[in-house]
Amino acid sequence: MGRWEPNARGRLEQAAMELYGDRGFDQTTVAEIAERAGLTERTFFRHFADKREVLFWGAGALQDGLVSAVAGAPAQLGPMDAVAAGLEVIGGYMQERERSRRRQHIIAANPELLERELIKLASLSAALADTLRGRGVTEPAASLSAEAGISIFKVAFERWIGETEERDLRQLMRESLEELRAVTAGR
Amino acid sequence: MGRWEPNARGRLEQAAMELYGDRGFDQTTVAEIAERAGLTERTFFRHFADKREVLFWGAGALQDGLVSAVAGAPAQLGPMDAVAAGLEVIGGYMQERERSRRRQHIIAANPELLERELIKLASLSAALADTLRGRGVTEPAASLSAEAGISIFKVAFERWIGETEERDLRQLMRESLEELRAVTAGR
Repeated sequence: MGRWEPNARGRLEQAAMELYGDRGFDQTTVAEIAERAGLTERTFFRHFADKREVLFWGAGALQDGLVSAVAGAPAQLGPMDAVAAGLEVIGGYMQERERSRRRQHIIAANPELLERELIKLASLSAALADTLRGRGVTEPAASLSAEAGISIFKVAFERWIGETEERDLRQLMRESLEELRAVTAGR
Repeated sequence: MGRWEPNARGRLEQAAMELYGDRGFDQTTVAEIAERAGLTERTFFRHFADKREVLFWGAGALQDGLVSAVAGAPAQLGPMDAVAAGLEVIGGYMQERERSRRRQHIIAANPELLERELIKLASLSAALADTLRGRGVTEPAASLSAEAGISIFKVAFERWIGETEERDLRQLMRESLEELRAVTAGR
């Protein structure tokens, strides 16, 4: 039971995503995930706290990457440019379009997962605002820049996982930032 | 039981808000709310579907008001100005600062209520984007303007319910819009 299984985590994740997509998240058990991956339930729980964590384990790293990039952006950058530097880093984390697409379909089909996703984004926005305040940005500029950053990410992400989209996430986020600049300027 | 009770709805709402605030939402029963209001459980359920509805019944009217105002804004207005017209209407709906303040404290103390609130805001944003597309605004401008509108509302609302804030919600939303314009312009 305790022996090393080559790429157990990746196999479990792959098996879970297939089952969540085919049967639905609620209809899938950990026993079935382990079986499909050719592993034991015990191995599953060595890698993931529960079924949900298979979908959300990357959120912490994403938030850390975003916050570090914004905190470490050149001091002379205004809040929106610092946020843009953070979005570039997020773009680096998210490269696997097909995986993101499947994950999003699973989440959209399940109200509880969708709620968890919204909580995650709200917490990302709060962490971002906090980081901006740490750069000396006052309120409400800090919260508004943070919210704008999350909006840009959400809107670009939705486009990125669109069936026919070929541009990468970074490019779409840059375009969304330009578009937000244009709409707020009233052009 | 079926007789008319003067202002039953208002008395039930008042009793519920007091109990949610004092004991917590989960620790309050419908029987207790009815008792404090001097009414029956049956009367409660003639006015509210459940305990949560006491906190969320206004959301539908708010969304309708916002959507109508944006849909009916002068055709020559750009998306952000149309959203601003909608925010003015929201400002008209939300006048009772003390009630909003207490409601927000109740919601912030309960993860399930907070999730419901986030879902409500996401649905407001989606309805707003849809309305803007109906005005001929293309994507991603429609979604970004809608998200910006909701961000302005959220940030201004948080300030409005602050303990020492005296400006009204409309004024705070106007200021937040100006501030968003400034940060996105990089000033």
